[in-house]
Amino acid sequence: MKKSFGAKTLIFPAPVWCVGTYDADDIPNIMTIAWGGICCSDPPCVNVSLRKATYTYGNIMERKAFTLSVPSRKQAKEADYFGMASGKNVNKFEKAGVAPVKSKLVDAPYPEEFLMVLECEMIHNLEIGLHTLFVGKILDVKIDESVLNDKGEPDINMVAPLIFTPVYGGYYDVGAFVGKAFGVGKELMK
Amino acid sequence: MKKSFGAKTLIFPAPVWCVGTYDADDIPNIMTIAWGGICCSDPPCVNVSLRKATYTYGNIMERKAFTLSVPSRKQAKEADYFGMASGKNVNKFEKAGVAPVKSKLVDAPYPEEFLMVLECEMIHNLEIGLHTLFVGKILDVKIDESVLNDKGEPDINMVAPLIFTPVYGGYYDVGAFVGKAFGVGKELMK
Repeated sequence: MKKSFGAKTLIFPAPVWCVGTYDADDIPNIMTIAWGGICCSDPPCVNVSLRKATYTYGNIMERKAFTLSVPSRKQAKEADYFGMASGKNVNKFEKAGVAPVKSKLVDAPYPEEFLMVLECEMIHNLEIGLHTLFVGKILDVKIDESVLNDKGEPDINMVAPLIFTPVYGGYYDVGAFVGKAFGVGKELMK
Repeated sequence: MKKSFGAKTLIFPAPVWCVGTYDADDIPNIMTIAWGGICCSDPPCVNVSLRKATYTYGNIMERKAFTLSVPSRKQAKEADYFGMASGKNVNKFEKAGVAPVKSKLVDAPYPEEFLMVLECEMIHNLEIGLHTLFVGKILDVKIDESVLNDKGEPDINMVAPLIFTPVYGGYYDVGAFVGKAFGVGKELMK
């Protein structure tokens, strides 16, 4: 039997990603979001949704660029802080002791200590309601060499991204390998 | 040191969700996607991206509705199959032995056996490139009572959604609780 929970933003999993931008004074800002995903393969794009009230919203509208970085399990404290404080009042990079790196590809900064970083050019914005959806064209993905396996591929358990549970506000770890995509379902293709 | 991976749809985590639709003959169809996320709190909305070549794309354009359901670790085989076969050629519900339930709220079916289901009305579509992004307004979230804890809340480890690694095509489990959002970062607010 299924129970009805009503019209809620309740689905698992949601990501925990940090959006890096510059403000009008070139002060780097960073904000954590869970409303986002990949949205196109060609050109490769991601989407993130922001409320107009956020400092990051104005920064992206002005600079047409942002970075998206993946905090690791060990950076849950910093990621959570980046989602609570506002760049209107504080330089969150400084306060958290995280170093802003100026992207060479887009007009936005990213946190040096984070293991996986996407540099994005904003190519669409769509007002939906409380949130505006921004589409960012991915120009590069940078991954720390410490989390690459012996084939040179990023190991998700070493990147250790956080999983968010909307409504209930929990951060979770990634667990064990379950199976290969375009693999475990092949027996049903017969 | 960070290594450059180029312009790729490479970020962790991505979800594994199944999109339920009806075709012009009212045959239920279901397709697995990993390009999607939550995109607005009010009205509560999710987004999913589809290639025009998919059967689901035409179904959503025609019926303006879809369901989004979350396969569990134990349904990895069915989910993987739903991402490989096309509804143009086969009734995937029948082939996988999954029962389509007609939503009472939107013009789309969902798989009875799946533990978490969202019923959505398509309110926007945005062509980005190879993929079109669809925004679905969530009318209800239905969750199987078997995965609710003693507070009546869904337990993510019981729902056991799959985590997808883009580019590398792996399915992973959700792991342990790491901390509370709007909690673990509070000490940096001081």
